Amino acid sequence: MTELSAAQPDSATPDAWVSGPGYRLTRTQGVTAPAGFRAAGLAAGIKASGKPDLALVLNEGPEYAAAGVFTRNQVKAAPVKWSKQVVESTGRLRAVVLNSGGANACTGPLGFQDTHATAEAVAAQLSNWGTETGAIEVAVCSTGLIGDRLPMDKVLAGVTEIVHDMGGGLSGGTDAAYAIMTTDTVPKQAALHHDSGWNVGAMAKGAGMMAPSLATMLVVLTTDAHVDAAALDAALRAATAATFDRLDIDGSTSTNDTVLLLSSGASEKVPTQDQLDAAIRAVCDDIAAQLAADAEGVTKRVTVTVGGARSEDEALVAARTIARDSLVKTALFGSDPNWGRVLAAVGIAPVQMDPERISVSFNGYPVCVDSCGVPGAREVDLSGADIAIEVYLAAGDARASIRTTDLSHAYVEENSAYSS
Amino acid sequence: MTELSAAQPDSATPDAWVSGPGYRLTRTQGVTAPAGFRAAGLAAGIKASGKPDLALVLNEGPEYAAAGVFTRNQVKAAPVKWSKQVVESTGRLRAVVLNSGGANACTGPLGFQDTHATAEAVAAQLSNWGTETGAIEVAVCSTGLIGDRLPMDKVLAGVTEIVHDMGGGLSGGTDAAYAIMTTDTVPKQAALHHDSGWNVGAMAKGAGMMAPSLATMLVVLTTDAHVDAAALDAALRAATAATFDRLDIDGSTSTNDTVLLLSSGASEKVPTQDQLDAAIRAVCDDIAAQLAADAEGVTKRVTVTVGGARSEDEALVAARTIARDSLVKTALFGSDPNWGRVLAAVGIAPVQMDPERISVSFNGYPVCVDSCGVPGAREVDLSGADIAIEVYLAAGDARASIRTTDLSHAYVEENSAYSS
Repeated sequence: MTELSAAQPDSATPDAWVSGPGYRLTRTQGVTAPAGFRAAGLAAGIKASGKPDLALVLNEGPEYAAAGVFTRNQVKAAPVKWSKQVVESTGRLRAVVLNSGGANACTGPLGFQDTHATAEAVAAQLSNWGTETGAIEVAVCSTGLIGDRLPMDKVLAGVTEIVHDMGGGLSGGTDAAYAIMTTDTVPKQAALHHDSGWNVGAMAKGAGMMAPSLATMLVVLTTDAHVDAAALDAALRAATAATFDRLDIDGSTSTNDTVLLLSSGASEKVPTQDQLDAAIRAVCDDIAAQLAADAEGVTKRVTVTVGGARSEDEALVAARTIARDSLVKTALFGSDPNWGRVLAAVGIAPVQMDPERISVSFNGYPVCVDSCGVPGAREVDLSGADIAIEVYLAAGDARASIRTTDLSHAYVEENSAYSS
Repeated sequence: MTELSAAQPDSATPDAWVSGPGYRLTRTQGVTAPAGFRAAGLAAGIKASGKPDLALVLNEGPEYAAAGVFTRNQVKAAPVKWSKQVVESTGRLRAVVLNSGGANACTGPLGFQDTHATAEAVAAQLSNWGTETGAIEVAVCSTGLIGDRLPMDKVLAGVTEIVHDMGGGLSGGTDAAYAIMTTDTVPKQAALHHDSGWNVGAMAKGAGMMAPSLATMLVVLTTDAHVDAAALDAALRAATAATFDRLDIDGSTSTNDTVLLLSSGASEKVPTQDQLDAAIRAVCDDIAAQLAADAEGVTKRVTVTVGGARSEDEALVAARTIARDSLVKTALFGSDPNWGRVLAAVGIAPVQMDPERISVSFNGYPVCVDSCGVPGAREVDLSGADIAIEVYLAAGDARASIRTTDLSHAYVEENSAYSS
């Protein structure tokens, strides 16, 4: 099996500059690509390994509009409760502080106090250094093992240090991207430069527990476009529904998922809502591809597309059912074109289909037509790293795709060998 | 990791005779334990390995009442279509012919013709040997790889031979139980002897793709009680809902799942519906335990019980959500008492819960109370083969359990190394 790297370009998401309608996209810059943002990352000692574990993203304005999308898990970590409340009640943020090394989930009222104290500390330090800030302007994100309190002495000392160290330029963004990694093997960043003079940046972490709404992931997006919180919110919700919500690695959804979008307005450019929507979606789509490629134990990047469905929702449900099926995923790990498992999987999806007229192709090669095997279907070569599964349900005209991965020995190893 | 064997007794389902209310249960006999049944199994050459692959169960009467429960997968194998039609339209069966080595699923109209021809051949051979039989009295079950036609020359020659060889006594039942194995490591049988003089027998195969309704499994139950098809149907539906429907190995449901129940009436005893219900359920429950213990790649036998739910249905949905979570299952493989993954899993179940008051215990040891960890929780010893997870939702009084397993390297290996 080949090891995949998120840094390895694939056809859909090249590593170098790529052009879209009116913009260029790159993975070599992140949250500090737009004007008006600074970031930093350092090792505060939260992780036993001594690796970087604390990050800060600072919006220097002149605007501070913000929007957020949070986990749909009923069990929400303390930082999710805090940040959701802050963002949804004010629509503005000056800073986001993020830690890896502990999720601060299932830690009760004391865990919530820890989150609050972290926001207070960031606000106090920023105020010390001349940026008058209240705790209610600071979002907090945490990721790591569920159930343990954070080492608050280290977190608070780290906050003092990181505000002191806060630097501008590209390196700050990259440091921050490294500091939020858990089982990620590479940091994830993207930046979009719009031809009309405004920019979007992003960093993300996430390598497992991805689905059914968002991955276990923390994503911070920044823009220097001059837009209000309502415009950010609309763009962010549309983008996450079409990207992170369609990324399904193992059917699990974390207690800590958070996607934040902050606007500095520093470019003084005002994009249309359509331009903003397209830009945020392009960045989220690229980040989602990076997350899938670096998912725990992945040896295959898989896209499951279902067509011929009665509605896009039904196409999504069917694609998700296939993408989550352990027997399909283990067959893909074995590069086995076992289309029978795809039919068995889609047959349990609660959507309309004609069971006698289902068709399946692997990488464009038809392996099953009208619910029967095609000669040579078992010889289709799936040994490459990218697999596209297309399924036709013969029930309508709607179509949708889900990104997923295979189910490998490495996935089992990574998730059984130690607590994470 | 220890290898589990279905033959290895566990506390719930001993291997030796055990007593229930008015009955005794054993695993050393199967479908031929009740009077009026004969069975056989042999190698017809359907499997490339040369192992036994054809089985026949014959009801010699004087009654021929029958009931069946079939897969809810929309993609149904040819033998399921045939047997469902036969059983549901007539409520009677003289014989069941079963093959391993091929599922005869996704094989189109020609595959259905193969099933029909098999039933015709059994009927003709039985008629030749003095039991006047029509094809409509013969159910057909197949299991194996989806998508290939069966080698009908071998199937039909095997049918001729198996009817000729048909023997009585216990050995015939055991031969049949061996002949339906696929990736099963041991045959599964059970027999119940009621104090009032009637009996129930069963054989089953199934080792993967178990859920959400039935496992990939073929189960044939026999009884010599004198009961009609409606009584059999009621008993069988109640029993499968409480046993096989609550067995969830990997969330997959096959195209071929079939559970049949045949009555010979040969004991001339007439149980009450309650007695029949209890007996069929006890046998199905024991078979379900054997299926779970022999599931593909299993190193742990796991029971997930959810209490404090608003309804039994919600308790089941929550238990199933936990039982299917890959991160919970890999943690159990690693004997890791990672209760945070249980909370993250149950939090995405679409049922009512109090997210601040969830409690979890492992093997009776409380690890999480009111959604917070208990000191020492991470030191709970889960190295044994049996793990009981109890979760309390604080939303009501209802309670239900699901049987499942861990997610191991062996599962990945077994399902990726070759087509099955």
